[in-house]
Amino acid sequence: MISFAINKAFFLHALNATKKAISTKNAIPILSTIKIEVATSGITLTGSNGQISIEHFISIENDDAGLLITSTGAILLEAGFFINIVSSLPDVTLDVKELPHYQVQITSGKSEITLKGKDVEQYPRLQEVDTQNPLILETKTLKQVIAETAFAASTQESRPILTGVHVMLKDNHIFKAVATDSHRMSQRQLTLEKKSADFDVVIPSRSLREFSAVFTDDIETVEIFFSASQILFRSDNISFYTRLLEGAYPDTDRLLTDQFETEVIFKTVTLRHAMERAFLVSNATQNGTVKLEIADNAVNAYVNSPEVGKVHEELDIETLSGNDLIISFNPTYLIDALKALKSETVCIRFLSPVRPFTLAPGDDSENFIQLITPVRTN
Amino acid sequence: MISFAINKAFFLHALNATKKAISTKNAIPILSTIKIEVATSGITLTGSNGQISIEHFISIENDDAGLLITSTGAILLEAGFFINIVSSLPDVTLDVKELPHYQVQITSGKSEITLKGKDVEQYPRLQEVDTQNPLILETKTLKQVIAETAFAASTQESRPILTGVHVMLKDNHIFKAVATDSHRMSQRQLTLEKKSADFDVVIPSRSLREFSAVFTDDIETVEIFFSASQILFRSDNISFYTRLLEGAYPDTDRLLTDQFETEVIFKTVTLRHAMERAFLVSNATQNGTVKLEIADNAVNAYVNSPEVGKVHEELDIETLSGNDLIISFNPTYLIDALKALKSETVCIRFLSPVRPFTLAPGDDSENFIQLITPVRTN
Repeated sequence: MISFAINKAFFLHALNATKKAISTKNAIPILSTIKIEVATSGITLTGSNGQISIEHFISIENDDAGLLITSTGAILLEAGFFINIVSSLPDVTLDVKELPHYQVQITSGKSEITLKGKDVEQYPRLQEVDTQNPLILETKTLKQVIAETAFAASTQESRPILTGVHVMLKDNHIFKAVATDSHRMSQRQLTLEKKSADFDVVIPSRSLREFSAVFTDDIETVEIFFSASQILFRSDNISFYTRLLEGAYPDTDRLLTDQFETEVIFKTVTLRHAMERAFLVSNATQNGTVKLEIADNAVNAYVNSPEVGKVHEELDIETLSGNDLIISFNPTYLIDALKALKSETVCIRFLSPVRPFTLAPGDDSENFIQLITPVRTN
Repeated sequence: MISFAINKAFFLHALNATKKAISTKNAIPILSTIKIEVATSGITLTGSNGQISIEHFISIENDDAGLLITSTGAILLEAGFFINIVSSLPDVTLDVKELPHYQVQITSGKSEITLKGKDVEQYPRLQEVDTQNPLILETKTLKQVIAETAFAASTQESRPILTGVHVMLKDNHIFKAVATDSHRMSQRQLTLEKKSADFDVVIPSRSLREFSAVFTDDIETVEIFFSASQILFRSDNISFYTRLLEGAYPDTDRLLTDQFETEVIFKTVTLRHAMERAFLVSNATQNGTVKLEIADNAVNAYVNSPEVGKVHEELDIETLSGNDLIISFNPTYLIDALKALKSETVCIRFLSPVRPFTLAPGDDSENFIQLITPVRTN
């Protein structure tokens, strides 16, 4: 039966990180609990929603944890409830002690709280991933790739494969991530210095966003392992598992072309703010669009929502070259695309009013490309 | 037709303050608009949900407003939509110009946005309050009285009069505010230096909370005017109207008694934290209570929620005098009561396990008293 003392703030931080995998409304009731396993080397906290699972290890060797283990074992406790209790405790440390019948007594200062737990045997087994030959990435780099692509994945379950991000390693060192919801696409490529084994997987975009929330910026590198159905992201203390999506991802390379007729370079933030104003009015009409008119060395944007009003923006441009053009599109897609760009300027290339246009950072047209499909009007 | 230029940040602040009276889902659709009246002396913004109304005046003499009026008139615009547009504008100033057919053109930098407005004649007339002989209070003092009493009002419409705060002036200088939901009561009294005419009204507690949100701390004093059905709180720029509740407020004085058998003084914050822990567990049971045991010069608190667990808190006390006692109550009421107390210590007086107990600030037992009804158990 478990028995340990621990620093409250440290324990709370680990509990909250683990809780990110736990959903309050899960079809499998036992997954609302957090698993606490106490071994002689430390404590492992586990949370899961069936799709993603997080294991958080607290070592007895971590001085900040102030962990003192007097008896080992394992127990399940209602995650949200237990975390609320821990966060409300009066002292800087707490003692956790298992009593008969899966009860857990928590003492801190003059508070003594006894909670009903559950037998750890009720917890489902997480699938295992073979932890050999990891791909190692900087956490910062991986999180940036996620921020640049995951938003473009579909949120609709009608084509489940499009709710994922297609991630692959080609030629042992070209790392590529692509997402599309069939209206827009975002693709990021990286050239790795160290060669690794090729892979090709589709990771749920929601899992990737959770990964970004769990792997804080103080974690420098992340080890990545694959099995046929799961991927594991691992740091010293955290193991983050997610299921992969099954099925063939559509061929997105065929959408990309080097052809273009018109090229405009904008300041990223200025263009985004103009599109946000356009969106306020276009959004009042169902499937509302913004119309871009490129003519006379100027770019003007127009929205007309008969019920609420209209917008005219004369857009600031850095440079403009090529043919005149009139093109309409949903401003939301352009706003999302511009938010994903860290560069000061953005280069947009148009081919025709009915063909997708591309966006690339003003300072790197090679490795990050986005694509937005226009809307045909009239 | 209206035409003016104004500083964006200043205008936005005034619009947002006025919007506090506007509900997004109102049975009267026209009340989702904001009324903009432009006179030669300045602009009056009006918002209302039928219960409360706010008029916000922006004077041409206010340098921060940067207001330049070129044509007077009045128009109605959808409040939320208009505010979103204004907040998204690119420049530090904006121009508003009425066009035919109740259209309004907003220009700022290179943005030009045209919105459909409505005829001001469609706006309902706010009831008027005679603005003579105001009662003048410090805003800070009035807001404190509201914070100390409004939370104790009922949120249930079964007895509408209890959703209000009973506010009165007696003997021309005793200002008193009382609220009760029949489970607890809070009463605050002030002795005014300047004499005024007596009054006796019941103000919806929700209106008072809105008043506190609208009258920011930089407004030093507030003038208060009454009509038979309305009350008006007025500062230099803001007029805040609310309807009064009709009906007789119950006699709460009969609930107060000087008798007590046991008196305990606690540190306010320490007791509150202990009750918050107790609440986490008691809340898992419907109508869960905490049991206080006063015996052997110590106070212990117990919660037992068979389904989730139990709590034992040994409470820190400052002083204790009188008889031993066991009493049970809903910890929510005690938590609310302690939150309303600014004093470092709280004096709680008990008469018997079945009679209400009272709370008073440790440093002022005269003017602020609260009362909580216990729950009979077994």
